[in-house]
Order: sequence, then C-alpha cells, then structure tokens
Amino acid sequence: MTGRFVSLEGGEGAGKSTQARALAAALRARGIEVVETREPGGSEGAEAIRRLLLEGSGDRWTMEAEALLFAAARADHVAKTIKPALAAGKWVLCDRFVDSSAAYQGGAGGLGLDRIRALHDFGSGGFLPERTLYLTLPPEEAAQRAAERDRDGSDRIGGRDAAYHAAVAAAFESIAAAEPDRVRRIDARGAPDEVTARLIDALSDLLP
Amino acid sequence: MTGRFVSLEGGEGAGKSTQARALAAALRARGIEVVETREPGGSEGAEAIRRLLLEGSGDRWTMEAEALLFAAARADHVAKTIKPALAAGKWVLCDRFVDSSAAYQGGAGGLGLDRIRALHDFGSGGFLPERTLYLTLPPEEAAQRAAERDRDGSDRIGGRDAAYHAAVAAAFESIAAAEPDRVRRIDARGAPDEVTARLIDALSDLLP
Repeated sequence: MTGRFVSLEGGEGAGKSTQARALAAALRARGIEVVETREPGGSEGAEAIRRLLLEGSGDRWTMEAEALLFAAARADHVAKTIKPALAAGKWVLCDRFVDSSAAYQGGAGGLGLDRIRALHDFGSGGFLPERTLYLTLPPEEAAQRAAERDRDGSDRIGGRDAAYHAAVAAAFESIAAAEPDRVRRIDARGAPDEVTARLIDALSDLLP
Repeated sequence: MTGRFVSLEGGEGAGKSTQARALAAALRARGIEVVETREPGGSEGAEAIRRLLLEGSGDRWTMEAEALLFAAARADHVAKTIKPALAAGKWVLCDRFVDSSAAYQGGAGGLGLDRIRALHDFGSGGFLPERTLYLTLPPEEAAQRAAERDRDGSDRIGGRDAAYHAAVAAAFESIAAAEPDRVRRIDARGAPDEVTARLIDALSDLLP
C-alpha cells in the first residue's frame, strides 16, 4: 500500500471538517488505512504550540511571530506524524496545511505568500500534499454560512469582515491557479454526500 | 537620553551572566536607566516559548522547529520588551540575542548562519543591537570552565563535546569578522572587574 498525503482547504463555512470525516470513512470503506489530522496541531509538540496560538487575546502575537509559530508547529507535525504515517503506507488526511498559512497570514494578513512558503521550505523542506482539495463557495453563500456559525460574535476568525474573507479566497484561488495538478477546486454546494463524491472523484488517480 | 541596545554573546563559561549584571550596575552608576533581559525569553509570550524549548527531552524538536521557535520568541521579545524600552530612552542589555541562534543552530547545528538571519529578517525585520560584546576565551580555558560547570554531566548544551563548542566559537568569530563595528571581541580572562572595564571601554562611543 502506498501512503498518500491529502489536505483539505477552504474558508470558514465550506464544510471542511464534515467532509474530512466523510472522506476518511469513504476511503476506509475502500480498505485504505487513514490517519485524520488537522492544523495547527497533530503531534505532541504542535499541539503545545497550538495552545500558545489559541490562548490569550487576539493581539497576543505579532503577525510575524504567529507565522513562525505556525511554521514550527507544522515542522513538528510533518516530522512526527505525517511522514511516519506515509512511510507506514497509510493515507494522511489533513484539515488545513501550509496553504491555510499562505492564505490567512500570507494573503489576508499581508505577509506575502512567498514568505510563508519560505518559512515552510525552512521548517519542513517545502513538503507538500500530493493532492489538495480546495472547497469553494460563492462569496455570498460563504458569508451567510460564516454568519450562521458566528451568531454570538465569538468566532475570532469567522467574525472578521467580508474584505478579509475575500482576501483569503483570493489567495486560495491564486494558489490553485499556480498549482493546478496539486490543488483541485471542489464545489462545496449541495448535499454533503454529493460533495464527498466530488472529493473522491478528485482523488481517482491516487486510489489503489 | 538615547536608548541603546547592547547584547552580550559568547560560549559557555565565558562569564556572560556575571558580566551582564556587573555591566548593568556600572551603567546605572553613570545615571543610565538599564533594562536587563535575556534570551530565549524576556517577554510574556517569549517566556511561554522558552518553556516549550527547555521542557521535554533533548530531541523533542527538530533542529528546524527549534530555530523557528527561537525566531518567534525573539520577534515577541523585540516587539514587546526591547523596542518599547529603547523608545522610552532606556538602555537594553540582553544576555544572548540572534548571534547565539546563528552560532548554535546555524553554525554548530548546521542550519547555516544565513538561514538563521533570514528567519530574523522575517520575524524582527532584521533588528540588531548597536553593539555586541563577544566574550572570548582560549579553547582550553573554555573547555575547563565548561567541565567545572558540568561536573554532574547534567548540562544539556555545556556537556556537548569539544568539536561542538569549537564550531560555536568558529561561528561567533566569523560573525565578529563580518561585522567589526557592531561586534567587539572582549578578552574574558582575568579578574571580573578587569573584564567589566573592558566592556565599558568597548561602549565608550555610545556613553552619554
């Protein structure tokens, strides 16, 4: 069995986490051993860094310190969880990976996509998924879903304004355009099992 | 009063911490307000990262993750402690700064001095001390002092072998050679107050 590294990306409300679970179940039904993981976190050291990133106030870290912490967590996650699982022939399904850092800190945060990728080159040797499934929604539907998730205004990221979410989407689109073989745009509208079927279809060349 | 940023650097056993205290006292005796700090740490966020770096086993982090964590801690330290103190007209005396990352992780650790400086450019805009006081000892005396500090073999860094410490010293020497105005080599042999006098002398052009 050949291990495959697949990431799921997209903005808030696109259904990533739900689809990650459904996709893992669909792969297991095909006899594939799947490790489900997510960022930030996914290994002991990366989970400790995750706590540093999520605790405290929103301005606890400078944008640059935050990007360095994400890169450090990812380096640990790749070395301790992802590469060992792939070496054991398992599939790794990761909810968010470096493209999220590029879109959120690099694009919307203004640090630049290239500088985020340079940190990833340093920390993880530029290690990338074989396939990235980018769940897309039209802006108005994404905004509506985000608002539904944030009725009490408590979501620190989801509660940001439309311009911020548009910048995130633009960055994801530019990554997808630059790496069309790795990054596949998946329409996230419709019934959840229809979306899962699209994800499986976008992995067909990798399936055993 | 003009704030000045001064770092102390050197290998284990060169007397950095003792000299930092003595130098701070000597500056205060001249009416200068001094903030004493040290890395990793020196701000709330950086101290939290320091705990991640020092707890757990020696191989808890990959070399790259460790360098990213140091750079994140330094970004926080610069933004939250060092720059505000300088803006208030204080002197900042820092026991270890980016040259230690360059010498230990970049030189002895094999990541490369340039790559450590690139992380510092990212995290802290390449912010450097106005003057770096590099305490030097002949290798045999450094080895003897390090052995005395590590009688029980418990010092994770100080207990490493002579080749490691030689690589650290070689990296510090190459930094000092490349930036002779910023980095001053100070002979750390002799009585402590003689060494302190040499440090003050190396700051004479910056004193009010």
